[in-house]
Amino acid sequence: MGKKDKQFVSEITPMEVDFPQWYTDVIKKTDLVDYSPVKGFMVIKHYGYEIWENIQQFLDKRFKETGHKNCYFPLLIPESLLKKEAEHVEGFAPEVAWVTHGGQEELAERLCVRPTSETIICEMYSKWLKSYRDLPFLFNQWCSVVRWEKSTRPFLRTSEFLWQEGHTLHETYEEAQEETIQMLNIYKEMAEDVLAIPVIIGRKSEKEKFAGAHATYTMEALMHDGKALQAGTSHNLAQHFTKAFDITYLDRAGELKNPYHTSWGVSTRLIGGIIMAHGDNRGLVLPPKIAPIQVAIVPIASHKAGVMEKALELFTQLKEEFRVELDDRENYSPGWKFNEWEMKGVPIRIEIGPKDIEKNQAMLFRRDTLEKEAASLDTLKEAVTQMIDDIQKNLLLKAKNMRDEKTYYVKNFEELKEIMGTRPGFVKAMWCEEGSCEDHIKEETGVTIRCIPFEQENLGDTCAFCEKPAKVMAYFAKAY
Amino acid sequence: MGKKDKQFVSEITPMEVDFPQWYTDVIKKTDLVDYSPVKGFMVIKHYGYEIWENIQQFLDKRFKETGHKNCYFPLLIPESLLKKEAEHVEGFAPEVAWVTHGGQEELAERLCVRPTSETIICEMYSKWLKSYRDLPFLFNQWCSVVRWEKSTRPFLRTSEFLWQEGHTLHETYEEAQEETIQMLNIYKEMAEDVLAIPVIIGRKSEKEKFAGAHATYTMEALMHDGKALQAGTSHNLAQHFTKAFDITYLDRAGELKNPYHTSWGVSTRLIGGIIMAHGDNRGLVLPPKIAPIQVAIVPIASHKAGVMEKALELFTQLKEEFRVELDDRENYSPGWKFNEWEMKGVPIRIEIGPKDIEKNQAMLFRRDTLEKEAASLDTLKEAVTQMIDDIQKNLLLKAKNMRDEKTYYVKNFEELKEIMGTRPGFVKAMWCEEGSCEDHIKEETGVTIRCIPFEQENLGDTCAFCEKPAKVMAYFAKAY
Repeated sequence: MGKKDKQFVSEITPMEVDFPQWYTDVIKKTDLVDYSPVKGFMVIKHYGYEIWENIQQFLDKRFKETGHKNCYFPLLIPESLLKKEAEHVEGFAPEVAWVTHGGQEELAERLCVRPTSETIICEMYSKWLKSYRDLPFLFNQWCSVVRWEKSTRPFLRTSEFLWQEGHTLHETYEEAQEETIQMLNIYKEMAEDVLAIPVIIGRKSEKEKFAGAHATYTMEALMHDGKALQAGTSHNLAQHFTKAFDITYLDRAGELKNPYHTSWGVSTRLIGGIIMAHGDNRGLVLPPKIAPIQVAIVPIASHKAGVMEKALELFTQLKEEFRVELDDRENYSPGWKFNEWEMKGVPIRIEIGPKDIEKNQAMLFRRDTLEKEAASLDTLKEAVTQMIDDIQKNLLLKAKNMRDEKTYYVKNFEELKEIMGTRPGFVKAMWCEEGSCEDHIKEETGVTIRCIPFEQENLGDTCAFCEKPAKVMAYFAKAY
Repeated sequence: MGKKDKQFVSEITPMEVDFPQWYTDVIKKTDLVDYSPVKGFMVIKHYGYEIWENIQQFLDKRFKETGHKNCYFPLLIPESLLKKEAEHVEGFAPEVAWVTHGGQEELAERLCVRPTSETIICEMYSKWLKSYRDLPFLFNQWCSVVRWEKSTRPFLRTSEFLWQEGHTLHETYEEAQEETIQMLNIYKEMAEDVLAIPVIIGRKSEKEKFAGAHATYTMEALMHDGKALQAGTSHNLAQHFTKAFDITYLDRAGELKNPYHTSWGVSTRLIGGIIMAHGDNRGLVLPPKIAPIQVAIVPIASHKAGVMEKALELFTQLKEEFRVELDDRENYSPGWKFNEWEMKGVPIRIEIGPKDIEKNQAMLFRRDTLEKEAASLDTLKEAVTQMIDDIQKNLLLKAKNMRDEKTYYVKNFEELKEIMGTRPGFVKAMWCEEGSCEDHIKEETGVTIRCIPFEQENLGDTCAFCEKPAKVMAYFAKAY
């Protein structure tokens, strides 16, 4: 590695030194995102947006396979609608952007830029729903939402972000509950099989649930710094909104009923999760399934006869099946290019030079393990396919191991504080399910209950914090 | 056709009686769209949104094939940015929505909801561009925009609509011009090959061009009522914005230069065009390539043994290649279903009953010609493929014939007025290219110059309106 290369790598602050700075360096230097002139609003550059497109593609397909259809509802919501569901307005009113003027005129009623669309969608559903025959309503929309945040970080917490929001209506509570869990499971499948991020799924505590929900379910991932990321939520809203918005239908017996209701969403926040679950001090490490570039081909001694031709041949051959980039830039050295593709998290780099061509081979470099191996040109496509598959699996395994190493069990508050102060991560503990314990922990340590996991373990009979009888085992962590 | 069926059809006002009412009836009764509680804002229901998804899919692929990448820029634009390009702010300021409060606080500077994103994108480009090596910039975004309209009609003119906006930078004027025309040609390809809508492409007059453009190019389609629809525009912005936003780069000679700039967009307005170019008094007629449902299977006497099984078999067989719906609803008669699928514009309806099964056939009904024919079940897939292809071609041909029948040539203003008063359509006329003629025509008749077509015809030497020497042949029409 030459001098220039070292300098290049060192532009990223090591994560052990300053994790937030590492994050900021990575997203800026890898061109995922940029800051905009409006505070808290980000520009998603194409390298970041392509990751989002790959996530969208997977989810949209799964949503459609499970019977959902896409619609589009208005960006602006009248204040009176936002106020219809009492808990909801309390939760969202403090953080919305208000449109007060349209063209030259002041509006009679101010409109908020949607922070989420339950209210406008319920207003429409109340017009559309007539009979039990119309149910279920299974609709989703892809859009941006605005929540006026005081302190923001690209992808993780921004005043505008991209997301999808599903909104469904059902005849019975049980069906709504089934839908809520089905969508959470699709999110888990996406997180683990596509993003290679292992997640804990479970229910939110009463204090942490969505404003207006009957119950909120979540998937929680652990980042390199031991903080949790809420990576997706699915809400059983029961009849909270359908009653507030007077959504009714004639049931099978001819009686007027309120349907049951769910909503669920994931956002560009997931990209922050990918960065912090897989990244290292060289930069991004992208799971092949969502990497905008899966393979970067770097010709070595490209001025020598036959090298560029062979590189182009490999490119042409591989691009039938993979997202490939041929790095034919003339004014950069191979070493510089190696570092750039490593920093950008490209899963596989292929090096091809005169000596390789002589041996009818190419060198395959894996971003996840930093290992290099030779592959015969006769079976290059197979070798790449296999390596892509290996990397995808290995990233999930590595992330699982990291999480497991940072997952602890505590018997009391002192232990929780000690762990959070020295080696933060997920803490499992028995809990009485009372808000007072939860408040106390949060006030003193900033630690919150991430979820009450579906997969319960009986770690004792009493609450670790108040010694009342324990009702559940919960995951605690500091969170983004 | 039974009594109930007739009544069903007659719910759509005939277009000859009242074209605007026909349009409103069609969009409401076919569930493409609904009005929202915010005046001028529409809800795009799934049947409408799926058409948009099909348009998106085609365009996104073509954009990527021509080297463009998607990004996402902020929804809100500071007033100071909007004001940087003088003509632009004059054009857009009167019709933007203003955000004045974020959360509980009044903003120091108000923000407009993007009406189009040249300003915010140029602000970012000025940060990103350094060297000629970075050029061209070829970026696009899919999003919604808001323009505060006084009188609105779903799809055609709404205060919010969905669109894509491409924004590119180039080293030379010629490259920018080439890009501008390339994108217009992709739009034309989409309009004609996908939407089956023939378009005239050409340049806008100085008065009709985009606020801030050096030159605007457009594609113009003719609707059933003889009014034109501007269906997509592509702008050569030259250096108007790059100078105003101080976008510079070091050129090949090491000198600081402003790049050349283009932008181009199409919107959900296209769906209005599809409705008004192909629809008839039975409702929608959708081109197969963008129809959410290409084939609807209606079982006849479905209670009889074997019918539902056979219908399901056809469904399973066809859905491998087509977007198919099996209409197995029990509480509707076949006649009612026929009308519904006709109204919804489904290109092919397949009827299958006991007598058909006996003959190893199904009946294929074409929405475009209203003709029915028998097809052997042994070669059903081939028959459907062929018919889909025929319908797509026939719709374009029909629309071309309709347009040609409504295209006139006039030698003077009297002739133009006479035609517009009795049989509106496209009027070709020689023009001096002076704004005074254009203004006079518009004031007296509401007719505007739609474009100066690339395909020029020499129809005389003098302007049809002022008798000065003619410079160009232009298309005139009333427009949406």
